[in-house]
Amino acid sequence: MQTIRVETPAAKYKVFAGSGLLETLAPRIERAIGRLPRRVFVLTSVPIWALWGEAFCSSFADPPTALFLPPGEKHKNMASVERLCREMHRAGADRGSLLIAFGGGIVGDVGGFLAAVYMRGIRYVQVPTTFLAQVDSSVGGKTGVNLPEGKNLVGAFHQPLAVFADIGVLGTLPDRELRAGLMESVKAGIIRDRALVRYMEDHVAEILAREPKALEKVIAASVRMKADVVGQDERESGLRMILNLGHTVGHALEAVTAYKVLLHGEAVAWGMIAALHLGFKRGTISSKQLARLEKLIHAYGPFPPLKLRLSNIVAATVGDKKNVGGVKRFVLPIGIGDASVVEDVTTAEIESAAAYMLAQAAKSAS
Amino acid sequence: MQTIRVETPAAKYKVFAGSGLLETLAPRIERAIGRLPRRVFVLTSVPIWALWGEAFCSSFADPPTALFLPPGEKHKNMASVERLCREMHRAGADRGSLLIAFGGGIVGDVGGFLAAVYMRGIRYVQVPTTFLAQVDSSVGGKTGVNLPEGKNLVGAFHQPLAVFADIGVLGTLPDRELRAGLMESVKAGIIRDRALVRYMEDHVAEILAREPKALEKVIAASVRMKADVVGQDERESGLRMILNLGHTVGHALEAVTAYKVLLHGEAVAWGMIAALHLGFKRGTISSKQLARLEKLIHAYGPFPPLKLRLSNIVAATVGDKKNVGGVKRFVLPIGIGDASVVEDVTTAEIESAAAYMLAQAAKSAS
Repeated sequence: MQTIRVETPAAKYKVFAGSGLLETLAPRIERAIGRLPRRVFVLTSVPIWALWGEAFCSSFADPPTALFLPPGEKHKNMASVERLCREMHRAGADRGSLLIAFGGGIVGDVGGFLAAVYMRGIRYVQVPTTFLAQVDSSVGGKTGVNLPEGKNLVGAFHQPLAVFADIGVLGTLPDRELRAGLMESVKAGIIRDRALVRYMEDHVAEILAREPKALEKVIAASVRMKADVVGQDERESGLRMILNLGHTVGHALEAVTAYKVLLHGEAVAWGMIAALHLGFKRGTISSKQLARLEKLIHAYGPFPPLKLRLSNIVAATVGDKKNVGGVKRFVLPIGIGDASVVEDVTTAEIESAAAYMLAQAAKSAS
Repeated sequence: MQTIRVETPAAKYKVFAGSGLLETLAPRIERAIGRLPRRVFVLTSVPIWALWGEAFCSSFADPPTALFLPPGEKHKNMASVERLCREMHRAGADRGSLLIAFGGGIVGDVGGFLAAVYMRGIRYVQVPTTFLAQVDSSVGGKTGVNLPEGKNLVGAFHQPLAVFADIGVLGTLPDRELRAGLMESVKAGIIRDRALVRYMEDHVAEILAREPKALEKVIAASVRMKADVVGQDERESGLRMILNLGHTVGHALEAVTAYKVLLHGEAVAWGMIAALHLGFKRGTISSKQLARLEKLIHAYGPFPPLKLRLSNIVAATVGDKKNVGGVKRFVLPIGIGDASVVEDVTTAEIESAAAYMLAQAAKSAS
């Protein structure tokens, strides 16, 4: 097991990554926060609960009260949050209650937001069950839900008390989700950790075969990178922006496909291809680095082809939430292991990068 | 004009109380926060906007984009917050945008929560238009909405950048609302400011006649008390609880009457009568102090009679959100100018206090 400390102005907590965490959850949570409160709730999904509910409950003297979120992005909304608040209230939740978010990124985002707003904020713990949630969304305190107009437009910064990333739970994760989730680790390497890039280049087979040691290594390195960035910029006023490498175009791809075709990590994979190309065009990475990083991304593919019109992608990119005051903020890779945010990216550059990405996608689909 | 500083761990800001603030709002906000952002929004209600919209806009080069909340407690809900988020997004709101909450307590609570969750938090300013909102809800950063199960069960702590309490705006406030709002000032005096109690005893006529000097004095003293308490306990883990004097039974009265019969301040008036009696029974205030404070409360009446069953009031009191872990927390006055939170109040004591209150209410109605 590896332990990563997260320190922000608002909170200090630990992320635990390793095997066997799920079966020992209650004492681990007590070690992190002191005695369990009278009421403990767990937000999860029916498929996760069916597979892992028994193991989850095994270490609790009184099993937590389970709340369910139906799978799928369309339930990540205000109506779900309201319904869950009502259920918690009816089940006797008070300000001292604890919520455990046990599921993928959607459960984590909704659970965190639920904890942020129920009675103006209660404590919560993240137990992410997908690779993506383990390396990315469970760490950093970003919580929220979608509006019909766009993703994560409503939310809060609310740090968990602890995060338990159990590698055993990944055993039932569909292969496609693992591949997509690994894109956040590739991103972590590109923007901040050259050694992780190298490790992921050298251990493709072990990682895709889910060898515990390889997964633990990649998860811990990814979380360490994120913890470091979040610790320096909890509220995304500067540095934290670099975590959005590949996300500007990635979000546009998700929006254009109505969040129905691509997994988040798959959209980020294609978005990174666009960002890498833009960086290459500006000279922030060499053609050799471009080729090397593209190869790394594709090594964890294949990703679904993009049957999209260039003009739609470009239009969707402009509406992105990172564009404060209308300025296009864009994360560029700088060599391998560094990145920076620029604000002068032109529509023409985005068009060119997106066209390159579409050409790549056409090639990989054939 | 008087200026009161609020300092919490999360924020520092000023509350301005006086005349002529509304017509000079834009430069005053700029003095408080620096240049106005590209997009400024104002959340208000149609009646307030009809009366004061022109004055509000007069100091802005570009008038803010107005968003409306229909009057009434029933619109203080998650559906309104979602609708307003959507409207803001469609109108181009981004993370740098500013929201001004311009209205009574409901507009302030919803506006604050909207600012707390839109894109995980944007800046906002409070411009309260009722006496109650000026002395109470606009200060301290408590924001939120109701669930069908209870009031303010969903929300956030989100401090405004500044609060502008314009006394001129109170000119159009219905008399009943003024009287109800003054109960929070009476409460402020009882728990923390003996001089305010004395001033409100000696200036009933001037205050009810809305003489600007008298109102400014009462508002500033009330805000000063609240700022002091909030500064010591932003998140209501201890001291801030004393602000709930009269609110345990008061909330129960509001719940039992489905928020349709009593204004909040009126419920607090009756709730304080109950709390004073409980204090007298326990010996924390003398019979003379009880009589004196009851006289003060009634001097700012009359308040609507209570046609309620004792058992319903007692039952509703137990469901109160302040009862962490099932313990009944109750604020008791200690003499005049002090208060403390006790956790050992019995159902029998609440029954006795509520019975006394109902007898008083019957007397005042006859």
